[in-house]
Amino acid sequence: MAESTDADGRYVEPGQPYDRDTNYIEDRITRDGRDGWPVEAERYRLIAARACPWANRTIIVRRLLGLEDAISLGLPGPTHDQRSWTFDLDPGGVDPVLGIERLQQAYFTRFSDYPRGITVPAIVDVPTGAVVTNNFPQITLDFETEWSAFHRDGAPDLYPDALRSEIDEVSEIVYHDVNNGVYKAGFAGSQKAYERAFNTLFDRLDWLSERLERQRFLVGDSITEADVRLFTTLARFDAVYHGHFKCNRSKLAEMPVLWAYARDLFQTPGFGDTIDFAQSKAHYYIVHRDINPSGIVPLGPDETVWLTPHGREELGGRPFGDGTPPPPSRESEGVPKLRSA
Amino acid sequence: MAESTDADGRYVEPGQPYDRDTNYIEDRITRDGRDGWPVEAERYRLIAARACPWANRTIIVRRLLGLEDAISLGLPGPTHDQRSWTFDLDPGGVDPVLGIERLQQAYFTRFSDYPRGITVPAIVDVPTGAVVTNNFPQITLDFETEWSAFHRDGAPDLYPDALRSEIDEVSEIVYHDVNNGVYKAGFAGSQKAYERAFNTLFDRLDWLSERLERQRFLVGDSITEADVRLFTTLARFDAVYHGHFKCNRSKLAEMPVLWAYARDLFQTPGFGDTIDFAQSKAHYYIVHRDINPSGIVPLGPDETVWLTPHGREELGGRPFGDGTPPPPSRESEGVPKLRSA
Repeated sequence: MAESTDADGRYVEPGQPYDRDTNYIEDRITRDGRDGWPVEAERYRLIAARACPWANRTIIVRRLLGLEDAISLGLPGPTHDQRSWTFDLDPGGVDPVLGIERLQQAYFTRFSDYPRGITVPAIVDVPTGAVVTNNFPQITLDFETEWSAFHRDGAPDLYPDALRSEIDEVSEIVYHDVNNGVYKAGFAGSQKAYERAFNTLFDRLDWLSERLERQRFLVGDSITEADVRLFTTLARFDAVYHGHFKCNRSKLAEMPVLWAYARDLFQTPGFGDTIDFAQSKAHYYIVHRDINPSGIVPLGPDETVWLTPHGREELGGRPFGDGTPPPPSRESEGVPKLRSA
Repeated sequence: MAESTDADGRYVEPGQPYDRDTNYIEDRITRDGRDGWPVEAERYRLIAARACPWANRTIIVRRLLGLEDAISLGLPGPTHDQRSWTFDLDPGGVDPVLGIERLQQAYFTRFSDYPRGITVPAIVDVPTGAVVTNNFPQITLDFETEWSAFHRDGAPDLYPDALRSEIDEVSEIVYHDVNNGVYKAGFAGSQKAYERAFNTLFDRLDWLSERLERQRFLVGDSITEADVRLFTTLARFDAVYHGHFKCNRSKLAEMPVLWAYARDLFQTPGFGDTIDFAQSKAHYYIVHRDINPSGIVPLGPDETVWLTPHGREELGGRPFGDGTPPPPSRESEGVPKLRSA
């Protein structure tokens, strides 16, 4: 996602709490094509920066479900200017499928006067080059429910009928207090707004720790959409949010239950193999100049601690339910090896 | 200390490594009064902000040696503007002994055109209201050697003859790589300067960890000046330097030997009872606006972890040598209780 800035490029509005613009292009790609966008293999391209936790959800779910052949993946670099994510990691700075340098171009192809933030994840209709949707909470749900004809053999059910209301309920709480909660702390424009966000965040992490103390996953006994959503914030917690967003009651690594839970997922195929810590750090520390004017990116923390034993197998659970883990990432979509600082 | 800023109030010089101005008023207060300032009880006032690690050294040594009756203590608040520390914590915003609002006044009484940073610690001659010295590395050594006639019964020998060269040698290393090293990381004006400072700092902390693994204190088997100097940086490490100065390979609390060493000192009378975490955090996060433009002060981390058992007694050593611990702080010089975040 690219959070909206004001005309001066500020993320922090002095005196104000952080208020995320949650107006998205809400079209859906569905089996019945009711919004004009039918499910169809090799027609759409997912644009999802490694750095971004909201985009990260879609990369994980695409991998877990084996949608790589059906939906291709374009990866903008970790930084962007006030206007757009760019394809600066691709040869010539151009996305090889869409032929564009800036994601903004796909938004403008859809709406020539698109007035909001140019955000990832976005799904682009390749034939027309137009953005179909950037409505991130719906994209993964649609991968799970609308794209089932293209799921790999052994794909897990990340959004089982019987658990949907519980998944939705937990996800809603996690969104407000944790996923967006870290931003409310980091982009707070007053001490009071910061402290409120900080307390809400850590109270919620305590609540999650308690919930996860005797159960391996958030809902039911297998990985679901709810785990994907919590994971992408936890994966950036010590590397980014602890320092950059001042979420420093403690590191994730100092919260034993959540830290074990996060490592359990990290070490599960489809999760840790989507995480690029260097890109995540570069994104936040370089883009948010009003929080970090120097643009200097911290060297720490040590990433290799993510591979230490977590012991969560003892809680039982079946990570993939009746399904199986995904195969390794295709080579073109791999992430760098973990670095010790 | 008040680090020097440029005309725009910047601590970070873009493109440049951090370069501390180490020109001080180098007069000394001595038994023989050779610089015109003889040792004399109740004549001088030590001005030392709680927030400042360099000033903290003098508060600790004054307490350990029992110099409270001989040398009074003035405490500016944690924040200051580009020009001066101020006595904003005192009734009416005026130091009750010197009768001034800004420490700058005592510098100008000494030199009407004093061109450098207005720093703490400073020692002021009360009769004339003029600063005698702000040469912090010498001030504690003089407390230990020149003021011995006024030491309390049982005062430890913090700078024993036989260990001076070793204490000086260790202190020199600790100064460059650790005490000032955290500033070199935090005020680095380029990624390269930051990374060099970061690596030097943590390599040195590893070296110190090794040295302290089987010996309780840095030099000899009792507390010395060398421990005081290392302690004041360690005491601010997780609360300030880890996040604000990007010294985040790990927290101090994640370096087992140094963390135990630091807590051992913290729990020793004269050390932890001089630490005000809230003032330290307020100082760095509010004053250095070019690193933290919002001025928001983090709520974390939990301070109460400083009171957990450290186990260093097993290494033996005699903290106060042939001396004794100091009595509790006088009530007017106490610090707030530790807060959990």
